[in-house]
Amino acid sequence: MASINVFGSPTSAEVSRVLAYLFKKENEFQLIRIDLYNGLQRVPDPLKLQAITALFTFEDGRTTLVESRSICRHISEKYADRGNKKLYGKGTLERALIEQWLQAEEKTFDPPSSALVFHLAFAPTLNVRQDLDLVDRSKNTLSEVLDVYDKRLGESEYLAGEDFTLADLSHLPNAHHIVHSTDEWDLIKSKKNVSRWWEAISNRPSWKRVIELRNEPPPKLA
Amino acid sequence: MASINVFGSPTSAEVSRVLAYLFKKENEFQLIRIDLYNGLQRVPDPLKLQAITALFTFEDGRTTLVESRSICRHISEKYADRGNKKLYGKGTLERALIEQWLQAEEKTFDPPSSALVFHLAFAPTLNVRQDLDLVDRSKNTLSEVLDVYDKRLGESEYLAGEDFTLADLSHLPNAHHIVHSTDEWDLIKSKKNVSRWWEAISNRPSWKRVIELRNEPPPKLA
Repeated sequence: MASINVFGSPTSAEVSRVLAYLFKKENEFQLIRIDLYNGLQRVPDPLKLQAITALFTFEDGRTTLVESRSICRHISEKYADRGNKKLYGKGTLERALIEQWLQAEEKTFDPPSSALVFHLAFAPTLNVRQDLDLVDRSKNTLSEVLDVYDKRLGESEYLAGEDFTLADLSHLPNAHHIVHSTDEWDLIKSKKNVSRWWEAISNRPSWKRVIELRNEPPPKLA
Repeated sequence: MASINVFGSPTSAEVSRVLAYLFKKENEFQLIRIDLYNGLQRVPDPLKLQAITALFTFEDGRTTLVESRSICRHISEKYADRGNKKLYGKGTLERALIEQWLQAEEKTFDPPSSALVFHLAFAPTLNVRQDLDLVDRSKNTLSEVLDVYDKRLGESEYLAGEDFTLADLSHLPNAHHIVHSTDEWDLIKSKKNVSRWWEAISNRPSWKRVIELRNEPPPKLA
């Protein structure tokens, strides 16, 4: 029995960030998904969405964590010798640079990109009112954030240097939804270095596995 | 939030029996599935299969149950006014007849049919040694059991009389695997009345919904 348990839906950004990291680290883990049914139908309503968010939990033996970036840090520390060893840096200096861009993702990239994903991709399917003012402000903010990224990615292959790290990986869930579930993919694709970086990070096997897993039926016999 | 929680995989006979019953009763419930991953791969091994079986649990508020037929009885009693009201009978006499055939399923149909499903359908995909002596004995036993069924089904439309009940429904999971996942479908299709009954019970929307659910991807955005 695996000691690592992830409770939640792989369509959530938090869950998919952790799954991508676990694949990359080649860990064994259990994924526990929860679906609500009413009569013959599966219920995809806002309550369900809240439930998915609230229910996202990560257990590793006796450790329980609920925030995806902290979970990735925990996996890096505890399983330092598994899988890709450069993901969270080897020395203090490398790690400091990764942390700088991981925190840039959390503080500057995540808020506007989450707002765009929620109001442009989720809200219409959930019959929730779209806040178009917030959408406009988020587009402007995200574009400014990505101008800074474009400059940085003109100096190095990846955000924290020449290697793919947790700082890059952490952008995948929301960037994926912006490119594939909204009409705002131009925010990413119009910036030369950001676009090159997006192609490089989104075509890695571990991320493709997360996308497959979202669409994959359970093991079957008939 | 639904008060009914089903923990397990819809490919298991126990879980699918309960799901078919919940659909039929039009209950709201949550299905909690658990998948084991190792690196990029989902692991479909014997340990996993044991884990699935061991992890099958049903919760309804403070009531926890682990055996599918007891769970169906509980749903019938507690939600007597929901969905199809004839499933577990209305009076003492009807219920006694349903119980007679529900217990025939558990004591005479389930043991040989489970052995056939395990050794002919599961074992090859799990690299478990097939016990061909047990397969032969189970085929003979099941054929004799179904001769009794065939006689009964020559007297009435369904096992407990003219209505579809829990006694019929309870046969669906193993009968489905025998027809669709082994080469022994002749055990069911060669007997005139059993064959007619199988067509009638397996084409109901609630059972078709269970089969769909096994193959259904999670809700998706992109």
